[in-house]
Parts: sequence; C-alpha cells; structure tokens
Amino acid sequence: MALTVERAATLAERVAKLRLVDTDIHNDLPSIEELRPFLAQKWHPWLDSGGPGSASRYYANMGSGRMDDAVREEDGLAAGNPDWVVQQLMTKYRIDIGILTGSGIGLSIQHDYHIQTAIASAYNEWTLAKWVGPYECFKGSIVCPGQDPEAGAAEVRRLGDHPGMVQVLMASAARIPYGNKVYWPIYKAAVEHGLPVAMHVGSEGTGIANPPTAVGFPSTYLEFHTDHSQTMMAHCVSLIADGVFEEYPTLKLAFIEGGTVWAPYVMGRLDRLYPALKTEVPYLKMLPSEYLLRNCYFSTQPIEEPDNHQHLLQMLRMMHAEKTVVFASDYPHWDFDNPLMAFNFFPAELKRRIFVENAVELYGPRLLASHRGA
Amino acid sequence: MALTVERAATLAERVAKLRLVDTDIHNDLPSIEELRPFLAQKWHPWLDSGGPGSASRYYANMGSGRMDDAVREEDGLAAGNPDWVVQQLMTKYRIDIGILTGSGIGLSIQHDYHIQTAIASAYNEWTLAKWVGPYECFKGSIVCPGQDPEAGAAEVRRLGDHPGMVQVLMASAARIPYGNKVYWPIYKAAVEHGLPVAMHVGSEGTGIANPPTAVGFPSTYLEFHTDHSQTMMAHCVSLIADGVFEEYPTLKLAFIEGGTVWAPYVMGRLDRLYPALKTEVPYLKMLPSEYLLRNCYFSTQPIEEPDNHQHLLQMLRMMHAEKTVVFASDYPHWDFDNPLMAFNFFPAELKRRIFVENAVELYGPRLLASHRGA
Repeated sequence: MALTVERAATLAERVAKLRLVDTDIHNDLPSIEELRPFLAQKWHPWLDSGGPGSASRYYANMGSGRMDDAVREEDGLAAGNPDWVVQQLMTKYRIDIGILTGSGIGLSIQHDYHIQTAIASAYNEWTLAKWVGPYECFKGSIVCPGQDPEAGAAEVRRLGDHPGMVQVLMASAARIPYGNKVYWPIYKAAVEHGLPVAMHVGSEGTGIANPPTAVGFPSTYLEFHTDHSQTMMAHCVSLIADGVFEEYPTLKLAFIEGGTVWAPYVMGRLDRLYPALKTEVPYLKMLPSEYLLRNCYFSTQPIEEPDNHQHLLQMLRMMHAEKTVVFASDYPHWDFDNPLMAFNFFPAELKRRIFVENAVELYGPRLLASHRGA
Repeated sequence: MALTVERAATLAERVAKLRLVDTDIHNDLPSIEELRPFLAQKWHPWLDSGGPGSASRYYANMGSGRMDDAVREEDGLAAGNPDWVVQQLMTKYRIDIGILTGSGIGLSIQHDYHIQTAIASAYNEWTLAKWVGPYECFKGSIVCPGQDPEAGAAEVRRLGDHPGMVQVLMASAARIPYGNKVYWPIYKAAVEHGLPVAMHVGSEGTGIANPPTAVGFPSTYLEFHTDHSQTMMAHCVSLIADGVFEEYPTLKLAFIEGGTVWAPYVMGRLDRLYPALKTEVPYLKMLPSEYLLRNCYFSTQPIEEPDNHQHLLQMLRMMHAEKTVVFASDYPHWDFDNPLMAFNFFPAELKRRIFVENAVELYGPRLLASHRGA
C-alpha cells in the first residue's frame, strides 16, 4: 500500500489523534446458531446437532473468567453485544480502535479440519456482518484453520483485501511449531495481502495440540495460564530458526496474550548458540535476535508484575519495547489490564509507542482506513 | 547436619580457600560393560545384548558435541578417564570441587523402568568406584529412575548418606511435570538425607517424554537446545504451584543446564496471577516468587549472552543471582563455559557467590566433607 505524501501526512495526523489501540478484544459469539446464515447448507447438520464443539478450557478458572462489570444484566453476556462493548470498553477506557480476537481462535487446533474450515469462514463473515461492518472502531481478525494450511491460506486470500480485517489469527496451541514449512502457505498469503499473523493463547492441550507444556499436563489453572508463554517461546524460536523471516522478510508476527518478558531469554540463548551452530541453518543471514526485533510483536496483557517496577521496564528495554510491544486489554476476561491504571509508571514516550504507534506499524495504514460499506 | 562452632569455623575457612565449584561435569561411561560388576546377575542378559539403550540425541550437533581439547588422543574419549579430567579441567581451570552429572541422566525417562532402575543403581556404584571414591575433588550425583518414583526414592535412600554423593539427579525430560504428587516420594527421601534434587536437560522428546516443546518437535538442534529452558520453566512453575515447597520447605531444587534468565518471567507471571487465583491453591502460603527465591538454584551454563552485558547482569539481579545461581562448565561439551573468561564483567562479589558460596549453600557441608574410604 504505497501512500502519497498527502495521504501519509493525513495518516500521521490521524495517528497523532489516537489515544489507544487495543489489540485483544474477545467479542463473544453468544450462540453457534448465529453462524447459520453464513454457513453452507451442507454443513447445517453440524449445527442441528449442536455444533462441532471446540477447544474447551478444561482448566477451570475459579472465578467466572470474566470481569464482573463486563457482563450485561439483560442477557448475562460479556462482550456479546457490540454497543455494549463500545460503551463498557471503548468509551470507558478511551480506546479508539479495537482489534477483535473473538472466541473462535481454538478452531485452528480442533480435530476435524473439514468442518472447522467451514466454521472459520462462517465465523469470519459473522464478524464482518455483526461487528466490523457497522462499527468503524472495530477491526477484525481472519480466523484461520491452521491445521489445514492450504485451506487456511485460501481463507486468508478470500478476505485478505477487506479493509476491516487487519490480521490472520491462529491459536498458539499447535502440534507442529509454527516455523515449520507446512505453515508457509499461510504466511505467503498473509504477506501478499499485507497482513500480520497473530497467534493467541488459550487452547493449549485441546484438540490435536500437544500437552500445554513440554513436560505434559500441569495440575492447576495457575500453571496452565503461566505456561502459555512457553508455547509462544517455542513458536518464536521455530519461526526464527526455520527461516520464516528470511523467506518472508516483511511478515509480521504478533504474539498475543503470551506475556512479554521472555523475549530476552529467546534472543540471548539463540544469539549465544548461533555462531557455533550456524552451519546447521545456512539460510539465516542475521543474528536470531535481529529477526525477532524486526519481525515480531508482543502484546502487553497479561503484563508481568515484578515487585520492582524498574525490573519490568528493564526487560522491556532489552526487547526494544519501543518498537515491539503493543497494548492489549483481553476484555472481557478476568485478567483484563486496565489501560488507565496498569501503565502509569511507564515513561510517557514508551507508553505512547505501546498504546498507539507500534500498533500502527504492526497493522499498517489499514488500521486507520475506513471499512464502512466494504 | 548440625555443626559445632568449631566445625563451622573450619568450614568457613575451607570455603574461603575455594576458588571454584563446578556443578556440571559430564564424566563419560566409555562402555556399558563397565557396569557389569555392579549389576545383579539377572540383568546381565541386557548387557549381553548390548544394553537397554538410552536417550539418544536425535537432534545432531553439527560439530562433535565435545570440546576438541577434551578428547584424549590415546583412547579418543572425552572425560572418560578421571585423571584426564583432573588434568584437563580441574587443574587447568582452577576448579576445586566438581559435581559429576555423568552420562546416565536420561535413564529416568526411558520406557522400561525395571531395567533402568537396575542400571541406575549399577551406574551409581560405578560412579562411586571409579570416580568419587579415589578422588576427593569429585562429588557424585545419585542418578534416580524418576519414571518409577518408589524405586527412585529407594535408590535415594540406599545412597543418601554417602558423603561422596551430593544430589539426586533426574532428566528434565518428563511426561508429568515435576511438581506432581507422583514424584513426592523422591523429594521426601531427598529431604530426609539432606540432598538437593537436580534436573538436567538433554533427553527431551526421548523415551516416554513429551515432545521437546509444548507445540511439538522443532526442526533443528539450534531450536532443540534453546527450547530446553522451557522444560525447566514448566517444572519450576509446577513445583511451586503444586505446593512441593510447602510440603518440603527445606527441599532445594537445582535447574542444571537450563539457562537462567527465564526466572524473572516465571516469578513475574505467577506473582501477577496468584492474588486472583489463590483460592485454587490454598495450600500456598507465600508469593510464588518467594518459593522460587528460597528453594531454587540455577546453573550458569549455557549462560545467555545478550549483546549488552548489562542486560545479563540486570536479569541476574532480578532473580537474586547472589543467592540462586551456581557455576557450571558442562565439560566436556562443545558449549563449555570457560570460567576464566566467561564471567570477567561480573562484579567480584557476585562472581564469588556464583563460583563458590552459592554452591556451598546448595550442597551443604557435605560438599566439603572427605569421602575417602566411605
């Protein structure tokens, strides 16, 4: 998307006016029945029998899993109604643009790729019809059936030019690390359409995924949630070491809800080993950390909270957070990061990068493009 | 082990004279035949058929996997001969005490626990006979068949009072996270004998272990090696969250060859979640990070090498390295950390803690006790 000088100036002005971009809003699908109008007739028997099922969180959160004030009294839904989310999230917390990550991420790791591919398409159409189309403040994610990369790439191509869709979205839960060549058709399609690829945690150990850790199933939700970052690390290491960012140098990868402060470990360890092992990976041309810093983005939520705030800032500096970190609220989930509170000790310039500018760089001009009537 | 004032004074004097304690020396078993004298007759058919096999590293290191100058010309072995290791490692690098981690760690994650339990006992006897008994400078690890915790605990008890054995050793590769109650008999036995428990990387994805990452098998050795830390993180999270350190408050856990700088992620994430989720883990009485800092130790090798040395020091400070980090060389492996070079930018006091004092605290007075004739 080449910009003329005039349009670039306009873009900069618009960016300057943004207060906050939220990269992780879980709008809810109240019932799978809402997908029926968007699903081909031949798949309707699945809906008739209650739906194909999807990743269920078998690690129970002792609380409700949702913020209390996110639940609308009249229907008991959290984030099930766009107007409600505009009121309870966007207006209340002064968010200008919200990236919808929905509730269909886990379909990329379920058993039956035939029906899940169809559900993904219907889900994406539902997102456009109910949430993105009528609301300029919401941008959508193309939920991608990653367990069938060819079908996933086709879905990316089908919607890849829609100005309301700003990223490709897959579960971080996987049976093969995401650097592996089997996934490259998805990355090729994403790059062709100028879309970043995001992975989002939460379905670990479900469907055809591996157990949630490299040593099996943990016992508690506290562990399950903490261990999520390890899925992200393994993907990040794989994407770098398998050469994805050499093959697709403009591909941007966003790690959503996986924490942030593990990036220094990934960079420090890979950079230490690389000089001795580079004959194994002759297709790499830069230090591993250079790929991470050029191609990867990390969302804040859930931001780690060391006792000493300076420690968090030190780690964020190590990972060049001024270029690599974007804000996420995870609304309406229980561990929501309140943007009016959670970042008060951040230097203003860094906060501005995280709240607005990095998201603009990650998603590109499409983030600000009007999508009404598209 | 209560010390009299006199003995404590002597101990302090001896500690003051120590230059370096190396917590990870891989003495080699040149041939499984060397175990025959220590193995009960009924298991000899296994040796007759070449041995039960053990975790093989299917991720090939493009180099030899060994330091060139560790290999003895006359037999082609690296670390296969105690005198050679004394000369090439202990004398050359001014190491006073070396903890032997051997080459049998992976047996704790192999399929057949019957034979592996027998092999573990024979291996431990071989360690004592060939390496520890004749050399005051070497201390041994009780290799523990962790896949059969009852047998593992019995082996710990069998050798737990030997002054030459200073820790219980298991592979970090596992099918169940190490906080799980199935392993507690091992911890109980370790605590009763005043022994720390160490886990060591390298067998991930072999035997009955899970794949080396939470998202399956990576493609390259560069990834396999980098991902090792994630096994450690999952165990660390599990040990804390499952309450091992409440049940056994004096238990010390050493994470060997798993890197260091991931500890701030584990602490920051668990401490952030704990206040909201503590009803799930009512048996915990402190912040998760407090258990980590009280009960866990981390070996340096392979020390992460960020471009900016200050970043490493900052991360070490976050994890209270002055109390939690011990030196390891990983001799004779290719990624050996040379103690005369690798830590030159460390403040002298921190270096002293890492090189000597933390190891004394981890292993206790037994580290300095004479074991000749035991």
